[in-house]
Amino acid sequence: MKYIEGGVCAAKGFKASGLHVGVKTKNKDKKDLALIVADCECTAAAVYTRNIVKAAPLNVTMDNLKDGKARIVFANSGNANACAPYGEENAIRMCTAVAKELDMNINDVLVASTGVIGQTLPIEVVESGVAKLALNLSYKGSKDAASAIMTTDLTMKEVAVEFKAGGKTIRLGGIAKGSGMIHPNMGTMLAFLTSDCAINTEMIQKALITATNISFNRISVDGDTSTNDMLTLMANGLAGNDEITKAGAEFDEFSKALNAVCIELAKMIAADGEGATHLITCKINGAKNEEEAETLSKSVISSTLFKAAIFGTDANWGRVLCAMGYSGIDFNPDTVNIAFESNAGRVDVCKAGRGLPFDEEKAKKILTEHDITVDISLNSGNAECTCWGCDITYDYIKINGDYRS
Amino acid sequence: MKYIEGGVCAAKGFKASGLHVGVKTKNKDKKDLALIVADCECTAAAVYTRNIVKAAPLNVTMDNLKDGKARIVFANSGNANACAPYGEENAIRMCTAVAKELDMNINDVLVASTGVIGQTLPIEVVESGVAKLALNLSYKGSKDAASAIMTTDLTMKEVAVEFKAGGKTIRLGGIAKGSGMIHPNMGTMLAFLTSDCAINTEMIQKALITATNISFNRISVDGDTSTNDMLTLMANGLAGNDEITKAGAEFDEFSKALNAVCIELAKMIAADGEGATHLITCKINGAKNEEEAETLSKSVISSTLFKAAIFGTDANWGRVLCAMGYSGIDFNPDTVNIAFESNAGRVDVCKAGRGLPFDEEKAKKILTEHDITVDISLNSGNAECTCWGCDITYDYIKINGDYRS
Repeated sequence: MKYIEGGVCAAKGFKASGLHVGVKTKNKDKKDLALIVADCECTAAAVYTRNIVKAAPLNVTMDNLKDGKARIVFANSGNANACAPYGEENAIRMCTAVAKELDMNINDVLVASTGVIGQTLPIEVVESGVAKLALNLSYKGSKDAASAIMTTDLTMKEVAVEFKAGGKTIRLGGIAKGSGMIHPNMGTMLAFLTSDCAINTEMIQKALITATNISFNRISVDGDTSTNDMLTLMANGLAGNDEITKAGAEFDEFSKALNAVCIELAKMIAADGEGATHLITCKINGAKNEEEAETLSKSVISSTLFKAAIFGTDANWGRVLCAMGYSGIDFNPDTVNIAFESNAGRVDVCKAGRGLPFDEEKAKKILTEHDITVDISLNSGNAECTCWGCDITYDYIKINGDYRS
Repeated sequence: MKYIEGGVCAAKGFKASGLHVGVKTKNKDKKDLALIVADCECTAAAVYTRNIVKAAPLNVTMDNLKDGKARIVFANSGNANACAPYGEENAIRMCTAVAKELDMNINDVLVASTGVIGQTLPIEVVESGVAKLALNLSYKGSKDAASAIMTTDLTMKEVAVEFKAGGKTIRLGGIAKGSGMIHPNMGTMLAFLTSDCAINTEMIQKALITATNISFNRISVDGDTSTNDMLTLMANGLAGNDEITKAGAEFDEFSKALNAVCIELAKMIAADGEGATHLITCKINGAKNEEEAETLSKSVISSTLFKAAIFGTDANWGRVLCAMGYSGIDFNPDTVNIAFESNAGRVDVCKAGRGLPFDEEKAKKILTEHDITVDISLNSGNAECTCWGCDITYDYIKINGDYRS
């Protein structure tokens, strides 16, 4: 498996485009409509927010995906179309407009929105851009689509890989956006993936759920789980491999590639958390089981106090142990070791639940790096888990103190 | 029942004092030892953090309180004595030093610490102040003790009430400190209460647990639950009432007073959350049951995104509904009404789960007040609950980005 360029258009037979129409802002540099279209019908799968307050486009997408097939992703930024008047009606109008323009089936459209909650989607504005958006479709359009779904994101998020399965070269890639309201079980996160692999509906859904659980569900920016999260995967079969219909070597290769793409996109989202200045990786090893390790790791990366300490490059490991302590997991604090690591080195700060004397200067230097790892050993088993988060900063407050205006 | 002055010394027969010895800082204006002593043996009860990583003084206090009796509270700020070398040994040395100085029993001491986790408590420094601390004991010493337990708190927290029960005038009061790591199930919170009521161990414990559940367990500052939280209540019986040994009118009066004192202290802690500029009250009504209402209300006051919006005086009610949606409670979003209220008025922003048009200027004016209420109607039952929190600000990040130095 190797990483390649091309994002959501890396796989054969997928075009994409992005356009500014003015959903929220009149700034023409900010694209706000994204379109991804497959050259032929795809098997498809999706994962949605677990928030019981769900945005209208999610319900419409669920309906359209009942047959396990799709061909189009149509998304807008700037308005979440959640808790908004005429929500479903407007989400359906988005599907209708794009399907009509492309002369495809309405129920082949996966529709998504991200932005402010509770305001009516300016559907006429959206509809006014559809013809041009379709006209702009290109096999090199991944970046246009990736930039169109960004809200407070600072970086564009694209990943793609190439791998072999069944003697064929297969590609899988995608785009994503964060960057607030991100938490295990997904945040205001959209991610759209495509592949030219031939794989049936059952196996694509299975692979996507597994990949989600070890990637997007293991990141946290601020503990808020959005109404609009959605992750979709379409596979058009153009790689020419024998269709994957069961577990086995081919499915494992596909899953490995999908996991890698999802983990990379998830890490990009964590690193680009609103206002973030550090990507925090929290590795737990020596746990009794993976579930325990995951809960502990999530509790650490979700601790506001710990996140503030990392912003301050303060090796305040007490907050790590404290966050583990209130996670709900029953573990023995007296066997816990903690270290901080980065490209600048490693410092052990806690052994058997007690503070170690350590070089504060060295710790500061380690924590000044952008990518930081908290390495935690429970010494009570063989399971492990890694989760990702970011620090909380002045800019997070600034961005979220006045988001609607 | 009426509010009176005197804090933890309002009740008959309680002295208190505070002193600077230099546990953490050499700044002599910062007292760091607090002592509260009853003129005679008390029935006593305590509630502790549910964090499984518990500071050493909590374990020692639990041991000392097994007989349901106590007479002394001894606390230090500046060092949490949690995950620290010689933790229990040093907590016991604190008890020994003060009991010896006062010629009382070691197991009548309730000992508490608050401050940095993981560093060895400078026990000799603490011991060096005990004689002077005892000498300073005064029936008017509540403010000295209250200021000695403060860490990043900006305000001293004292409350006391006077009420009648069994024909006698009874007093109950206390002191508390916040102000980070505050969350339902208690944060780095210490609260010490005293009363001259005569009440047995069983009933004092019962009253304290009830009061905790509707006060300190209904506030949140940052979602972190500390290793050191402790709430104690000592009652010396000097009011001369017949000892309360069972449920009834006298117990109800005592509970009412205790609830009021705990709620006032809890609100003071929320209002003085690290860096906070607003006290947020979240009222939920029309719920199917109180538990549901409490979970929903806690989810709202704990939402980092919502807290940031309030800092920005932004009536972003979508974040309120979103936080309710991921609370885990199964409710109908389509019957939810939301309004913001303060001394500057009221604005309805959401009806039946959909955004209402509202006057943004008026909303801004309402949210500019210090005390803000989010009033939420579920319209699905008759239960209600109120929780308290605060906004998240630049100063929260500043304070917690560099707490250890």
